[in-house]
Amino acid sequence: MTMKAKKTVRKTAAKKASSARPAAKRIYRFGKETDGDGSMLALLGGKGANLAEMARIGLPVPPGFTLTTEVCNLYYNKGRKLPRRLEREMRTAVKELEAQTGKRFGDPANPLLLSVRSGARSSMPGMMDTVLNLGLNDDTVEGLARKTGDSRFAHDCYRRFIHMYGDVVMGVRPQDEHSHDPFEEVMDDVKRSAGVKLDLELSAKDLMQLIDRYKKLIKSSTGSGFPQEAFQQLSGAIGAVFDSWHNERAVVYRRKYNIPRDWGTAVNVQTMVFGNMGEDSATVVAFTRDPATGEKVLYGEYLVNAQGEDVVAGTRTPKAIADLEVEMPRAHEELQRVSRRLERHFRDLQDFEFTIEEKALYILQTRNGKRTGLAAVRIAAEMVNERLIRWKTALTRIPADSISTLLVPVFRSETRKAAKLIATGLPAGPGAASGQLVFSAREAERLGQRGEEVILCRNETSPDDIHGMLAANGILTARGGVSSHAALVARQMGKVCVTGASDIHIDSQKRTLTVDSVRLKELDVISIDGTTGEVFVGYLDTAPSEVIQVIDGELTPEQSPTYKLFEQIMKWADRARKLGIRTNADTPEQARHAIALGAEGIGLCRTEHMFFQGERLPIVQEMILAPTREQRQQALDKLLEFQRSDFTLLFLEMEDRPVTIRLLDPPLHEFLPSHDGVDGTLAKSLGISRQVFIERLRELHEQNPMMGHRGCRLGVTFPEITEMQVRALFEAAAFVVRKHSVKIKPEIMVPLVSYQGELEHQTEIIHRVAEEIMTRDKVKIPYLVGTMIEVPRAAVIAGKLARTAAFFSFGTNDLTQTTLGMSRDDSGPFLVPYEKLDIITRNPFASLDTEGVGFLVKLAAENGRNIRKNLKLGICGEHGGDPDSIRFCHDIGLSYVSCAPNRIPVARLAAAQAALQASRPSLAISRKAGSTQTASY
Amino acid sequence: MTMKAKKTVRKTAAKKASSARPAAKRIYRFGKETDGDGSMLALLGGKGANLAEMARIGLPVPPGFTLTTEVCNLYYNKGRKLPRRLEREMRTAVKELEAQTGKRFGDPANPLLLSVRSGARSSMPGMMDTVLNLGLNDDTVEGLARKTGDSRFAHDCYRRFIHMYGDVVMGVRPQDEHSHDPFEEVMDDVKRSAGVKLDLELSAKDLMQLIDRYKKLIKSSTGSGFPQEAFQQLSGAIGAVFDSWHNERAVVYRRKYNIPRDWGTAVNVQTMVFGNMGEDSATVVAFTRDPATGEKVLYGEYLVNAQGEDVVAGTRTPKAIADLEVEMPRAHEELQRVSRRLERHFRDLQDFEFTIEEKALYILQTRNGKRTGLAAVRIAAEMVNERLIRWKTALTRIPADSISTLLVPVFRSETRKAAKLIATGLPAGPGAASGQLVFSAREAERLGQRGEEVILCRNETSPDDIHGMLAANGILTARGGVSSHAALVARQMGKVCVTGASDIHIDSQKRTLTVDSVRLKELDVISIDGTTGEVFVGYLDTAPSEVIQVIDGELTPEQSPTYKLFEQIMKWADRARKLGIRTNADTPEQARHAIALGAEGIGLCRTEHMFFQGERLPIVQEMILAPTREQRQQALDKLLEFQRSDFTLLFLEMEDRPVTIRLLDPPLHEFLPSHDGVDGTLAKSLGISRQVFIERLRELHEQNPMMGHRGCRLGVTFPEITEMQVRALFEAAAFVVRKHSVKIKPEIMVPLVSYQGELEHQTEIIHRVAEEIMTRDKVKIPYLVGTMIEVPRAAVIAGKLARTAAFFSFGTNDLTQTTLGMSRDDSGPFLVPYEKLDIITRNPFASLDTEGVGFLVKLAAENGRNIRKNLKLGICGEHGGDPDSIRFCHDIGLSYVSCAPNRIPVARLAAAQAALQASRPSLAISRKAGSTQTASY
Repeated sequence: MTMKAKKTVRKTAAKKASSARPAAKRIYRFGKETDGDGSMLALLGGKGANLAEMARIGLPVPPGFTLTTEVCNLYYNKGRKLPRRLEREMRTAVKELEAQTGKRFGDPANPLLLSVRSGARSSMPGMMDTVLNLGLNDDTVEGLARKTGDSRFAHDCYRRFIHMYGDVVMGVRPQDEHSHDPFEEVMDDVKRSAGVKLDLELSAKDLMQLIDRYKKLIKSSTGSGFPQEAFQQLSGAIGAVFDSWHNERAVVYRRKYNIPRDWGTAVNVQTMVFGNMGEDSATVVAFTRDPATGEKVLYGEYLVNAQGEDVVAGTRTPKAIADLEVEMPRAHEELQRVSRRLERHFRDLQDFEFTIEEKALYILQTRNGKRTGLAAVRIAAEMVNERLIRWKTALTRIPADSISTLLVPVFRSETRKAAKLIATGLPAGPGAASGQLVFSAREAERLGQRGEEVILCRNETSPDDIHGMLAANGILTARGGVSSHAALVARQMGKVCVTGASDIHIDSQKRTLTVDSVRLKELDVISIDGTTGEVFVGYLDTAPSEVIQVIDGELTPEQSPTYKLFEQIMKWADRARKLGIRTNADTPEQARHAIALGAEGIGLCRTEHMFFQGERLPIVQEMILAPTREQRQQALDKLLEFQRSDFTLLFLEMEDRPVTIRLLDPPLHEFLPSHDGVDGTLAKSLGISRQVFIERLRELHEQNPMMGHRGCRLGVTFPEITEMQVRALFEAAAFVVRKHSVKIKPEIMVPLVSYQGELEHQTEIIHRVAEEIMTRDKVKIPYLVGTMIEVPRAAVIAGKLARTAAFFSFGTNDLTQTTLGMSRDDSGPFLVPYEKLDIITRNPFASLDTEGVGFLVKLAAENGRNIRKNLKLGICGEHGGDPDSIRFCHDIGLSYVSCAPNRIPVARLAAAQAALQASRPSLAISRKAGSTQTASY
Repeated sequence: MTMKAKKTVRKTAAKKASSARPAAKRIYRFGKETDGDGSMLALLGGKGANLAEMARIGLPVPPGFTLTTEVCNLYYNKGRKLPRRLEREMRTAVKELEAQTGKRFGDPANPLLLSVRSGARSSMPGMMDTVLNLGLNDDTVEGLARKTGDSRFAHDCYRRFIHMYGDVVMGVRPQDEHSHDPFEEVMDDVKRSAGVKLDLELSAKDLMQLIDRYKKLIKSSTGSGFPQEAFQQLSGAIGAVFDSWHNERAVVYRRKYNIPRDWGTAVNVQTMVFGNMGEDSATVVAFTRDPATGEKVLYGEYLVNAQGEDVVAGTRTPKAIADLEVEMPRAHEELQRVSRRLERHFRDLQDFEFTIEEKALYILQTRNGKRTGLAAVRIAAEMVNERLIRWKTALTRIPADSISTLLVPVFRSETRKAAKLIATGLPAGPGAASGQLVFSAREAERLGQRGEEVILCRNETSPDDIHGMLAANGILTARGGVSSHAALVARQMGKVCVTGASDIHIDSQKRTLTVDSVRLKELDVISIDGTTGEVFVGYLDTAPSEVIQVIDGELTPEQSPTYKLFEQIMKWADRARKLGIRTNADTPEQARHAIALGAEGIGLCRTEHMFFQGERLPIVQEMILAPTREQRQQALDKLLEFQRSDFTLLFLEMEDRPVTIRLLDPPLHEFLPSHDGVDGTLAKSLGISRQVFIERLRELHEQNPMMGHRGCRLGVTFPEITEMQVRALFEAAAFVVRKHSVKIKPEIMVPLVSYQGELEHQTEIIHRVAEEIMTRDKVKIPYLVGTMIEVPRAAVIAGKLARTAAFFSFGTNDLTQTTLGMSRDDSGPFLVPYEKLDIITRNPFASLDTEGVGFLVKLAAENGRNIRKNLKLGICGEHGGDPDSIRFCHDIGLSYVSCAPNRIPVARLAAAQAALQASRPSLAISRKAGSTQTASY
């Protein structure tokens, strides 16, 4: 035999061996014998793995078995058929259950009943199907009745089973969302005949009649009878659960959460236990700690003589778990023991379900519990102290967004319950606020100055309204989304804000707000909850968050346990994160607040926001409308004074932290009144005729102001404005350096650059003026000049820009608008349908569109760093405060993110999580599956 | 000796040889002995190479020599010093000139005078410096006076020389643009003393005094005296000309035209000849053919007893060349001979300069002549017939844009001269139009229907005005650029248009147009020239272009020589080009016109333009404002009828040519009146209250409509609109296919796609409706579905889009707006300064921004073709008619360009030139130097 021939033989043998290999294990038992464990998430699904794990550690789990996710794939590969051999394997598994329980499947004397439930690798709540009480038929139902001595109970189980099976397995269900459930129709009919209103009121006899009619319904709908044979029932139910992996809901859900279709679902077949077998039976739903507050106390509720679904349905009011200690002391003790055991084992808050069947306890499932932001923080921190988890794990346990719930004021829950809800909009600025209704910024300011609490209500807000927004307690708009102007400014200011409350109608002339029949007048009191989007009539009591009280010095850290938790988490986050965290702040007050919350610098100071304040606006208007260059210079000279003092205060506040100052950005007409509002006084004060004034306004009007004469286009065409701003900045800087010996670090940012020549033009002015003042004042200020990257062209030519710019700051608000060709303010009418149609998964203005905008950000970052190795890269759009976007920024190696002051804690935590996730690639699976890059980058 | 050692020796020897090699030839003679020739452009510059070439073929060139461009580089490498050895070489060269002329350099008895001129590889007119009459000093001037017997002439030459030398070599010149020329100040002073007004009136004595004061001026300004030594003068002048390669003007010019700085300039030193030596001397400027009409006839003008600069200065009126035949018959004959010789030799229109010095003819320079579009076409075509050039060369000789001058009506030149010019705007739609002034679209329409000729005058136009624009003869706007709405629509319609005539003031209430003191009322007659941007008072006679008369069947091809030329060029162009040429056409009339001009299909049919017409607009408004879905459907049903008949006529016109139909694109409010115009009648006819109507208008108002609810965003949120349009299209198609047996090829285009899901959503509707109608009507129509690429995100995800789209059409108007974040309509106030500041070289809306927008176009084309090999790629923005953009489209391999009907000939020619240039890489040098790619593509 030649060598080659030998090789061939060996290969063939290997091939044969592989095809002759015994099939992979397809059924994993749990109970007395347990084959799987908690690590086998991919194979057994979440529910199956946890059931196995609990059985393994000796918790009282009703015995059962799991068909693996591989069986699901086999099922689909075979064209929706169960593998032949599986039947035999199932019978063996069921036999073992019979042996353990002493009951027999399909035996009228002592029937074994089973539940069949889905359980995918990743939880998909309510997306797939479940069948309970399987094994009941016309004979076994009588056996169950005899055995329990409760005919009503047995027949109630049976009718529920037929209903579920008919729906899930046999497809007897409403044809579309407008038609009724055929089973419910029959039920209604029977109830009418029996003269009762509630299901509970039906007698055993009524239920028998119902069962009879259910069976006829199935027969007439499908042509087949309801199957009486237990194994036939079982195969049918398993097939149906597998089928449900591909039902419409599940497909949509998977697409939305980027769950691969080939993951498949497992199926769990488990012995039924009944909490409704009398007064010594009960059903319990419990949490190992309080999921609302995080307090370490067993938390939950129970119902005697009931099944789990009765707790959920809310037809009876459950009792608090504490009462169980009195009613069933031994069960309560056992529950405590199990709770501790579960938490020690799973090392996280557990949400678990218990059934007490004739005093015997069975645990049906456990999973990591959902919790509020506060609870997430408290539980994570305390579990580290209890040495249950490490600090890095604790950080990954807190949804980054939820940390912000520690910062916002809240309505006291008792007052909320009593209040009259009139509308619901979008939760645009978290927190709770009450006040008198006003419809104009001017009125808001007037009342605000008198110390009144007001809610400013507008169709939408514009920069004109900023002083009114500042004075208001909260902002409510009828239009706009979560990233409308109102929302953006509100979050920046930390104001409570509800946007897009489209049911309300505002008549700003009559000064009324109408919702259906409710009509409110100006100065009527309303309350808005920016965390939920709710709008209430009247005054609701609020409580400021403890963390903010500590930040503001109204409480000491020692007085606030919540603050201590917060501080602890933030300390850990800072230890883990790689990204720098800066803030978008325009005033010393905002800067101070942001530093207290952990900002390491300013990533965006919008100098124009300084222009809107009180006495400055008329000067700005004078500058814009000046008929001669000389008059413009006079106005600029006045503005110089203001800007210099603004910058001085800001530098003093920020000390040696970097401060990025953006040159004037918005179109000039934003500083002017709209046509309608021209009353002639402004023209008069400017010494020009009303006609000239209106003419000039019209000239400045733009079709698409977002893409008009703004950003560095202003600085290039009116270089004297740039000169003034740079002069103010360096004179302030020189003053602070000389008088206060503070080492400040200004970073001057040129906005809306699309051509290299624009950046060069502005940079030349900056260097010239800087040099002049530093020479004159004999100081050396280490400053940087950089550019915003906020139009696609800038991203494309980033390599060239990096020759001039020492840093890039990605203005992802505008970059999103331009990359998508989508005006943020005008996108509401289609973005909402787009989400429903699954064209987008998240609003691109809230969370960075990594596929489109992200491509350009990455391109610019790479091309920029190719030219300038130490190029500083930051992001200062709204996305700087969004956890998903922060993760993207971390992944592509940005230097820092910058966000509104109140988002700083979120950003710190999200940055830490991104760093931890990047260093543990296993955690990143679902994210990788979700990345949808096509263009090669 | 080892092999290695031998090698080393050989290398060292080679090195020595190279360093010992005699220096490259640095001086090239022309005259009796000529060293160079016309091919040595890079080394001798344009002027030097042509002088050499003319001398070589025996034309009477005053002898001289050229210092090569390499000397220029040497000069800069040595820190602005001439190489040592050069001095000796120059002396030798001058000796040869002395031998040839019998004069001696610096000899008071018979002085040799020289000119020193720059001459770069690429012509840079007026950018660099020249010195004439070099060799004159206090002694030689007297020699010249004696020799010519004309003291005034000699001293005039001397004062001119001192002035030029003082300025160019010694730097005595105005300090900035605001100060006066110090030499001119002295001149003015001397003229005042002499009591004369003109230079010419100064006597020899006056001139002597002037020379004295000029020398003093130089002494006091520079500290050095004016140099008397001839070779010192020569070295100084040569150095100064080299210096001028780096003067500010030249640097800016080079940057603008992408001329590399290391090309350097040559310097030409040439014997002076004088056309001002008496009545038997003259200076002649001539063209070998008429540069205005292209007629093959010697063309030019001359002045007896004058120098070249006198012709240019315009102080005396030159005579036409025909008169020379009478005055100097032998010179005229010689001129004819030289002209024929030049053209036969250089094979292109020559623009040449002659001096007759005491009856002897000298040719001073020749170069390819500038010409009008008509002349370019005629000369190119006729030279092919004369076998001077090949047809491919002929194509490259015609600036593509210039072919369009054959299509537009023109004012007769005599009437133009007499007319009163009141303002100049931007040439936005070429051609000439006169008519009665009207200020509203309605009035334009009313008068137009009565057959009156009107000019519609607006501050700016909007889609509302389209019917008025259609009815008008010409359009004049006070605002907007060459790609404003008015300009775009005007060019599309082939209307004459002047935009941005900012000096005019329109009072639309009083219905007046005012410029300074001129006030015109409605119905006063004005004339506008869209080729020059001029606005005249009164009626000016126009003549329609012959080509258009043939196209329109008013002339036969035989009657128009111009048409024959046009047709010939177009035939050649079609033979050479690779790109397909389509048109943007919305009506059968436009389509027919475009086909006659050579369109091969429609690249963009804007269905919404059909919506604006007469009786349709109210139905469109009904559709938009419909309070219920039913009412909207009713309106859509009515529109269906119209659209179907529109499509039917279009398909019949286009026959088997591809027709790309874009689904509804503009925001809905474009179809509605603006707030101001609400008079209640529309609301009434819609059966809704005025208040509801205004409310709805306000709801539809958008901040940035360009990026708002438009394009496929409409089709996705109102799928019934897409359905209606697709239904109309396929019902029309089915009808045409069945009744007329025409094989039509519709291509349906989804606008403004930014997400894959949008395209899928619309494509699903298109396929469904198409299938339904084709099945119903039993026809098979081969149609394509594709997408526009007009936002950067679409370009980024092009690979994904290509899975659904069979073609991409680049909507570069919107892609430019979004990539640059620049609203076309609002860009005037900064784009104009940007051009002046050299931030941009051309308006990005007129010529594709290849660096930014082009990067995305190329990215999309590549990613698209990676996924779908036969993906059809076209461009349908305004850039489709711009030659530079067309070249880019050719280079990146697009399938076709689509442009306005009247741009079709330009596009055909430009496409041919792109193909020819691509196949002859040597032609592409300057373009390559100009390409400014940074991002790697």
